[in-house]
Amino acid sequence: MSDTAFEQAVKAVRFLSADAIEQAKSGHPGAPMALAAIGVDLYSRYLRYVPEDPSWPNRDRFVLSCGHASMLLYSLLHLAGYALSLEDLQQFRQWGSKTPGHPEVGHTPGVETTTGPLGQGLGNAVGLALASKLMGARVGPELIDYRVYALCSDGDLMEGVASEAASLAGHLGLDNLVVVYDDNSITIDGSTALSFTEDVCARFASYGWSVERVDGHDPEAFRAAMDRALAVQGRPSFIAARTRIGLGAPTKENSPKAHGAPLGAQELEGAKRAAGWPLTPFYVPEEARAPFTGWQAEQRARYEQWQARFAAATPEVRAWLAGPAAPADLLEQLLAAAPPAKDATRSLAAKVEQRAAALLPALIGGSADLAESCKTTLQGGGDVAAGQWAGRNLHFGIREHGMGAILNGLALSGFFLPFGSTFLIFSDYLRPALRLAALMKQQVVYVFTHDSVYVGEDGPTHQPIEQLASLRLIPNVDVVRPADAVECAVAWTYALQRREGPTALALSRQNLPPIERPASFQPADALAGAYVVADAEDATHTLIASGSEVHVALQVQRLLAAEGWRLRVVSAPCWSAFERLPRERQAAVLGSGRLVSLEAGVTSAWRGVVGRDGLCLGIDRFGASAPGERVAQELGLTAEAVARALRASR
Amino acid sequence: MSDTAFEQAVKAVRFLSADAIEQAKSGHPGAPMALAAIGVDLYSRYLRYVPEDPSWPNRDRFVLSCGHASMLLYSLLHLAGYALSLEDLQQFRQWGSKTPGHPEVGHTPGVETTTGPLGQGLGNAVGLALASKLMGARVGPELIDYRVYALCSDGDLMEGVASEAASLAGHLGLDNLVVVYDDNSITIDGSTALSFTEDVCARFASYGWSVERVDGHDPEAFRAAMDRALAVQGRPSFIAARTRIGLGAPTKENSPKAHGAPLGAQELEGAKRAAGWPLTPFYVPEEARAPFTGWQAEQRARYEQWQARFAAATPEVRAWLAGPAAPADLLEQLLAAAPPAKDATRSLAAKVEQRAAALLPALIGGSADLAESCKTTLQGGGDVAAGQWAGRNLHFGIREHGMGAILNGLALSGFFLPFGSTFLIFSDYLRPALRLAALMKQQVVYVFTHDSVYVGEDGPTHQPIEQLASLRLIPNVDVVRPADAVECAVAWTYALQRREGPTALALSRQNLPPIERPASFQPADALAGAYVVADAEDATHTLIASGSEVHVALQVQRLLAAEGWRLRVVSAPCWSAFERLPRERQAAVLGSGRLVSLEAGVTSAWRGVVGRDGLCLGIDRFGASAPGERVAQELGLTAEAVARALRASR
Repeated sequence: MSDTAFEQAVKAVRFLSADAIEQAKSGHPGAPMALAAIGVDLYSRYLRYVPEDPSWPNRDRFVLSCGHASMLLYSLLHLAGYALSLEDLQQFRQWGSKTPGHPEVGHTPGVETTTGPLGQGLGNAVGLALASKLMGARVGPELIDYRVYALCSDGDLMEGVASEAASLAGHLGLDNLVVVYDDNSITIDGSTALSFTEDVCARFASYGWSVERVDGHDPEAFRAAMDRALAVQGRPSFIAARTRIGLGAPTKENSPKAHGAPLGAQELEGAKRAAGWPLTPFYVPEEARAPFTGWQAEQRARYEQWQARFAAATPEVRAWLAGPAAPADLLEQLLAAAPPAKDATRSLAAKVEQRAAALLPALIGGSADLAESCKTTLQGGGDVAAGQWAGRNLHFGIREHGMGAILNGLALSGFFLPFGSTFLIFSDYLRPALRLAALMKQQVVYVFTHDSVYVGEDGPTHQPIEQLASLRLIPNVDVVRPADAVECAVAWTYALQRREGPTALALSRQNLPPIERPASFQPADALAGAYVVADAEDATHTLIASGSEVHVALQVQRLLAAEGWRLRVVSAPCWSAFERLPRERQAAVLGSGRLVSLEAGVTSAWRGVVGRDGLCLGIDRFGASAPGERVAQELGLTAEAVARALRASR
Repeated sequence: MSDTAFEQAVKAVRFLSADAIEQAKSGHPGAPMALAAIGVDLYSRYLRYVPEDPSWPNRDRFVLSCGHASMLLYSLLHLAGYALSLEDLQQFRQWGSKTPGHPEVGHTPGVETTTGPLGQGLGNAVGLALASKLMGARVGPELIDYRVYALCSDGDLMEGVASEAASLAGHLGLDNLVVVYDDNSITIDGSTALSFTEDVCARFASYGWSVERVDGHDPEAFRAAMDRALAVQGRPSFIAARTRIGLGAPTKENSPKAHGAPLGAQELEGAKRAAGWPLTPFYVPEEARAPFTGWQAEQRARYEQWQARFAAATPEVRAWLAGPAAPADLLEQLLAAAPPAKDATRSLAAKVEQRAAALLPALIGGSADLAESCKTTLQGGGDVAAGQWAGRNLHFGIREHGMGAILNGLALSGFFLPFGSTFLIFSDYLRPALRLAALMKQQVVYVFTHDSVYVGEDGPTHQPIEQLASLRLIPNVDVVRPADAVECAVAWTYALQRREGPTALALSRQNLPPIERPASFQPADALAGAYVVADAEDATHTLIASGSEVHVALQVQRLLAAEGWRLRVVSAPCWSAFERLPRERQAAVLGSGRLVSLEAGVTSAWRGVVGRDGLCLGIDRFGASAPGERVAQELGLTAEAVARALRASR
């Protein structure tokens, strides 16, 4: 009996994957071989897509959370007719190819997110599903009602970030989300019996998910479970599909050996022979494409209907679907939103944020249970809750990492400009998600408050020391730390205009006075990253500070002026932006005096800025619990202490 | 009817806590007021301790995972007779006091771990419970069989790190662990209905825990649940105690307003009046101490019996309980363990690790499911599994963050020197736990392999770029990145001798040749952080490199020598150690030539090292998927590219 078209497609996926991995001498064949049938079913029976328009706003999203199974996805995309050729598959894991080792959004048509770091994809999937609900409520479900399908491994489900996101998905009742769990009982180090014996299905049920268990190698059973999942209302669905890793490999099936290395020529040949498959590498019979083309005919009709509805939509609806856009006079509008006042930058930035929200309907976000402290609730925006999708305020719970992964999904939808807030110290909890936002070039705004030891009493566990510097180290992350109302407007403007990556705002808990600036000051100077906030004639020193320390620097200037010192003060809300300016512009701001940096955090990166004859004032130790002013005193951050340090170093 | 001693103790705890917070004008009264009865029960009916010896090795450990409730713990410790006076309580949250804002181990007798960042304490508790089982198997349960009691909040249980640790605790069947969950339905932003509606008890049951639900304000019910929990075998216990936050506050009970700010004079007075408690701040009737002293009489007898058993124990057993100790000739022994060979430093370090394990029985550890790749399995050490406590190899699963928190608990036990391994890129996942190890001055060793873009094909999600630099930023973390077998021995020696904080080893996946060193080389020079690995007469340039780039630097030296360049090469396995050397010693190593840094990662911290006229060669962008050598070529990390850059910058 010859293979059906479905079976041909499944075998093509399995052996395209194994061949590409063999050729690259690197990769993970076990999962693609085991999941081929599920993958073919998804792309030929469930996913709504047309391969010629991979950015169709209402396409279903497929997330391969276990990114190491990338060849599964590439093989499917190829067979399904995306612009991904056999030659592209043959370039698997080569420099500049469309088929990198792990899926990377923006590199490959049909890839919806960058995965590999485990657990993140599931969080992205929750964000993407949430975006569908939110946008559906804004433009109507006839325009946006896409579903999200995610494929997860044991590793994904062991990671805490996935637990956080899954709990929130259950809470929100995201019934447009289906997660298929590749339950193969194998991890790199051996059997899951070594470390993972929890009842995963019961866990997902405890989160409020609908749960199914099936044999992942029984297509009829899988389809029945999928069909039931799609009928579930008010709950996300979890399908645990029991599989054998490396299915069909003569000696490596069901063994960790199939996971992370090419099968080897002999094993691969054996697998092909057992499957009755030609040994020719990258062999694809035409029939293997049939299941996809048949399904797509149906989808294409839907696509055309959608385009007709879209063409008839109101300009407002079309604007929603075009994604975030800031008005040209954003900076002016935001400057007007926060008049100078003695206040914490978290509060001043909050005022700016309210205006920004009025200007950008796509701006949505929330907090990891610190909305009150971070002051990020959008007034009148309404809460998002299960079935309540018109709101703009998200409640992530005390789940920073899940928040980060979900924010990435919201941004990846293409519809929203999401923000998330927590204390700066807890940026450490979400760092892997923030890094992925940067790598994926996604516009996500982080509002990190309580940005220094001035938080005081809560002590060293809550006082950021290395966080400003360590966030600046991540490529394509910009940190903006404003010093007063004007700079808060600049900070939000910067974050909203920067489309190509995440921006982190660092805001104070403590009150700060407004800054009196020279008449020549232009807010655009601050937007450029750093500027002279107070000058002195023939300055012999330039004191560079950010955020609350700008005020200390200004005090120092006054204090030492009485002793004849000529200090220029530079406020540097965004050092990375400043460093991208032409050298001459930088030199004009820094002047020719001795450079001194002042920031309530580690000094190592500043040492390169000030040079060997410069001076770095900061905190190269953990903080301590005491009132903020006392901590500042003890750690040498007051104007008096800084002046003393300057005198001593002369 | 007058209060019983128990009731007096409970009220004393509630009002000592509220008074201290009122006086500090800062703190979290809600949880201490709600949990006072449970706290008094723990310290007067369950915990095995004698307050005069807070380091008794077999004491039960109490972990306040919700560290913001610190005053609950301080009040209990005071009443229980620890060396913590009323004056200490009155210094709550003041500079240098024994009562910082969140509990800090080492600052306060009776505080077992530093908590505040949510979820971490639960992970520490799992590690502490595991340490009890492991040590019990080594010295016998008559010497070590302590239990661990942890108190957790909603926030603790929402955090992914807690999910990871709890799943592993269930897997391991740690029946000496009891977690009490303060189930108050309130978080900072309001009701848990906003974001946390999962069935927490069902979740813990899915992890394999024994689960109880009780009214947290019904002492009889709580005690009955505790007694059942203590009888459970082979499973950890979870007791969800329904409570009302801020219990007894006239208007703030059961409201988020009781959580994070002092009650205010009027509210506090109202609470005291309602409780029939004198208004005098810090009032403690003698009777409030009675429940503790009665219980301690019993414990003291146990303590004396234990001391007698300990006095009679073998020297081997006494050595176990004395904690990790490295032999004086550690460096020599480890140098002998890994003869020079062309190999990856992960493999060379693995050989060293085997020898280290033979020398230090206290060395135990494991991997977040990358034992095969990181090569950290202790040969012949045996696996740790439920009921199998004699082993030394832990399987953390794909749970980096949980691993970090559990390693901290193992170290805090005082018995073990724990290590954990994963890829360097995933250090981001466990950063908050690593930071706490540093803050708590705990000796934890991290083995981070696949330490650069040379991992190649896996691509940018798996290629560290900013990780070396960002780990170095954390105060009290030392990073050691060895370049060959000799430096691997040095690296492990460094990590094992450094008692006052965590050390992170960064190891290569790719093979590296052995280094030929000058005859004058002393391994102690490498242990000091950086040393001249190849000199040139009257060197005009000093090339500073670490790990695999040392080999590139040596090639560059040879390549350019042919063109008349005189390059000194400095290998810098541990830059932070080097920077602590006296200036003169540093200068002798760096020489007087132009400084050039070379490291496969971000350059910003190196800029301060080389100065403005120096040159930094590194990678200030994300990596890419391709074979490692190709990536190195494209990113300018080959000897040819470095030589070109040097020529161009001359």
